[in-house]
Amino acid sequence: MSISINSPADFHVHLRQGSISELITPHVRKGGFDLAYVMPNLKPPVTSTEQALQYKADLERIDPNVNYLMTLYLSPELTPDEIRKAKKAGITGVKSYPRGVTTNSDGGIESYEMYYPIFEAMQEVDMVLNLHGEVPSDADANIHVLNAEPSFLPHLIKIHLAFPKLRIVLEHATTRAAVEAVKKCGPTVACTITAHHLALIVDDWAGQSWNFCKPVAKFPDDRQALRDVVKEGHPRFFLGSDSAPHPPSAKSTSTPTHACAAGVYTSPILLPLVAHLLESFGALDKLEIFVSDNGRAFYRQPVEQHEAARVIKLRKPSSKKLVDGNYVLGNESLIPFWAGKEIGWEIDEDN
Amino acid sequence: MSISINSPADFHVHLRQGSISELITPHVRKGGFDLAYVMPNLKPPVTSTEQALQYKADLERIDPNVNYLMTLYLSPELTPDEIRKAKKAGITGVKSYPRGVTTNSDGGIESYEMYYPIFEAMQEVDMVLNLHGEVPSDADANIHVLNAEPSFLPHLIKIHLAFPKLRIVLEHATTRAAVEAVKKCGPTVACTITAHHLALIVDDWAGQSWNFCKPVAKFPDDRQALRDVVKEGHPRFFLGSDSAPHPPSAKSTSTPTHACAAGVYTSPILLPLVAHLLESFGALDKLEIFVSDNGRAFYRQPVEQHEAARVIKLRKPSSKKLVDGNYVLGNESLIPFWAGKEIGWEIDEDN
Repeated sequence: MSISINSPADFHVHLRQGSISELITPHVRKGGFDLAYVMPNLKPPVTSTEQALQYKADLERIDPNVNYLMTLYLSPELTPDEIRKAKKAGITGVKSYPRGVTTNSDGGIESYEMYYPIFEAMQEVDMVLNLHGEVPSDADANIHVLNAEPSFLPHLIKIHLAFPKLRIVLEHATTRAAVEAVKKCGPTVACTITAHHLALIVDDWAGQSWNFCKPVAKFPDDRQALRDVVKEGHPRFFLGSDSAPHPPSAKSTSTPTHACAAGVYTSPILLPLVAHLLESFGALDKLEIFVSDNGRAFYRQPVEQHEAARVIKLRKPSSKKLVDGNYVLGNESLIPFWAGKEIGWEIDEDN
Repeated sequence: MSISINSPADFHVHLRQGSISELITPHVRKGGFDLAYVMPNLKPPVTSTEQALQYKADLERIDPNVNYLMTLYLSPELTPDEIRKAKKAGITGVKSYPRGVTTNSDGGIESYEMYYPIFEAMQEVDMVLNLHGEVPSDADANIHVLNAEPSFLPHLIKIHLAFPKLRIVLEHATTRAAVEAVKKCGPTVACTITAHHLALIVDDWAGQSWNFCKPVAKFPDDRQALRDVVKEGHPRFFLGSDSAPHPPSAKSTSTPTHACAAGVYTSPILLPLVAHLLESFGALDKLEIFVSDNGRAFYRQPVEQHEAARVIKLRKPSSKKLVDGNYVLGNESLIPFWAGKEIGWEIDEDN
């Protein structure tokens, strides 16, 4: 049995910088994808058009055969003029994180209104707003990693109502509440879902740091809601892997005073993994819709417009296949999600 | 400033066996305690009076200056006759785990009724039933590590109603629901609370395996309920540390296919830690009630009956004090909870 998928697109990926970027950027294509929507949370964050274009050039030098869609990091430095400049330069979106890593962002999530002039300009020139949809934990308000996303949803609704034509993506949704909120929004609001959140629940990261990421995987009922909306083929839900590499030592080892790194690395096995997971809950027939059609439609990135586009053929492995354990380049190494576990699909390299 | 506490008693502790037991058993007194209610989950589990008495002799050989209260592991092998024998031999309780590690326990928590003849005998001879109050995770029923305890509470109520004179302890409560359920029960139902569950919430073990234990720490509102019931001085709530040692390598390191060990080790710093935590939420005046009076009253273990009993004096450290990082004996080593963190109390060894 084989499946052909037309030009898979990953609408949320971390490609880092420096030597680790050299290792992971080619994994976009290795994993079956030829479009990468690139997150701007570098050190320092990508806050200007120049930085974004330089970053795109860096990535194209590593692998020219991927269509990189670039984003800016929402911060107080951003201006409406910069938004217009970015749009002209071909930058696609602006990413908002719950707490800025830049200066002057102590106000955190409460201060979205300070960004309304930015959102106004984005709506005007048709750039996409990408929301990391969590509020910061606050024990006094009983906000913690498991309700941080539902607690954020009123912000999504408020921004959507204030800017109904602004295209917004709620990134890496993990809860039934988020799925329902996005469904209730108008056609300008979409939602990415990662591969790993289709696989994991809270029990899977309890004591198991390799499965620890932000947002954390939630309850079985939440995972069911994610699976159901994929199975339904809802047009405003699509793949964004949030593939986020960390050195194996940072993933594996905590000390009494230092936690493990949050993030799950799926890039090099992404398409086979998504096929495997969708098959596990009876949604394999929605694979192309989920990994290509829906996201491309929302982002207006038709296949025919991209030179890098290709048809990927997946086949059933001829014998039991386990996910490779390790990727190395120079001093950098990475162990992907699902390492050592059986996977039911592989890319047919002959096609 | 100093405080004197009359004969602290830890009503839930794991003292293991073999070389690790040699290291940790003296930590009961080091931590300020002279009574240890000893869990029976050895390999193999303590299922007979002979085993329990042998285990007690082993512990007394290591440190004779502690009053060890022994328990049996609830399993299908246990008989009403064995209960009567155990009672005569001075064994105090029977511990139930959600899933047996012994054979013939696949039925798990659903099979409490098969133990009713045991509970009947225990009620008759006045032995204590200690419940690990969690049901096994079950994704299809949306049962996971965070609602496993609330989902167990109907079992507690059912057993209590069936055996109203049977003394029952719900062990290591972590949720507001558990606190409220125990409060609603009659005077034969009590509840232990650990030190670490007074400190931690879910955010603290996300990616941080040193804070990972079962039951997992829950939400801020749950922690508040635990703190409130301690502050209230409710007579049926008292300390059971659930101090559970694991080698530092097992706590610190996970692999893609192997999680970290669940358990938090508090024994060697227990009384100063509890004082520190109670002081942090304004309950220092309830310290003696929580660590001695309430538990001793429920278990009928008055101080005057115990040779090992002593008054422990706590003092404020003269300078900033951090918790010691490591305990070593032969090939065994342990890093306690709170290692490297400041602690506001220490045992005055001169008294």
